[in-house]
Amino acid sequence: MKALLIVAHGSRREQSNQEVLELANTLTQQGNHGFDIIEAAFLELADTLIPDGIENCARRGATEIIVLPYFLNSGKHVTRDIPEVITAIKPLYPDINILLTQHIGASPVMLELILETATNKA
Amino acid sequence: MKALLIVAHGSRREQSNQEVLELANTLTQQGNHGFDIIEAAFLELADTLIPDGIENCARRGATEIIVLPYFLNSGKHVTRDIPEVITAIKPLYPDINILLTQHIGASPVMLELILETATNKA
Repeated sequence: MKALLIVAHGSRREQSNQEVLELANTLTQQGNHGFDIIEAAFLELADTLIPDGIENCARRGATEIIVLPYFLNSGKHVTRDIPEVITAIKPLYPDINILLTQHIGASPVMLELILETATNKA
Repeated sequence: MKALLIVAHGSRREQSNQEVLELANTLTQQGNHGFDIIEAAFLELADTLIPDGIENCARRGATEIIVLPYFLNSGKHVTRDIPEVITAIKPLYPDINILLTQHIGASPVMLELILETATNKA
């Protein structure tokens, strides 16, 4: 059972957190992407923190969890904070393969996304 | 002359700002996207603010400037701060068509970007 855990920063503004949860829901409903489980969690300032997100995936039967930082820049949250949380949590789930990806800002698809948004201008 | 102005939040960490400038450079070099000019600017915490970015585009001969918020969430920066700056600046450039797009987090391509990043896991 393969899980994707989208990790955003988290905001005091509930709607911002909700947008990330909706992203996970939309991906779940879209299907056809090889993930049996898609969850979202937050680094801080929200109810569902990264350990909660990992636990949610584990409880749903995940044997592999891909942790994806939903961040644009390679700041300390991406380079230090999230890796530290993941390193600390791995020993608690010895039977689950937990892998951390690049942050989304590093994706080559970002160029395409920018141009798509710019072309469908408001 | 069509310009794209990528507007990021701005960071005290110079490398984060640099990443946005590099994104603009990469798009410029890539070409084949219909933009004659691509610039980056920041809402705050950086040297090149939005008025500077608009002025840079104007000085390079832009007749249309597409302003693209490089933000993931629809927080107050996206819904209030950036539109206010753009509204205030438009009368200063009566001969330039200045248009504000959605923020990148609202793009349907974001789903594809997430899956691409998750699949090419570290």
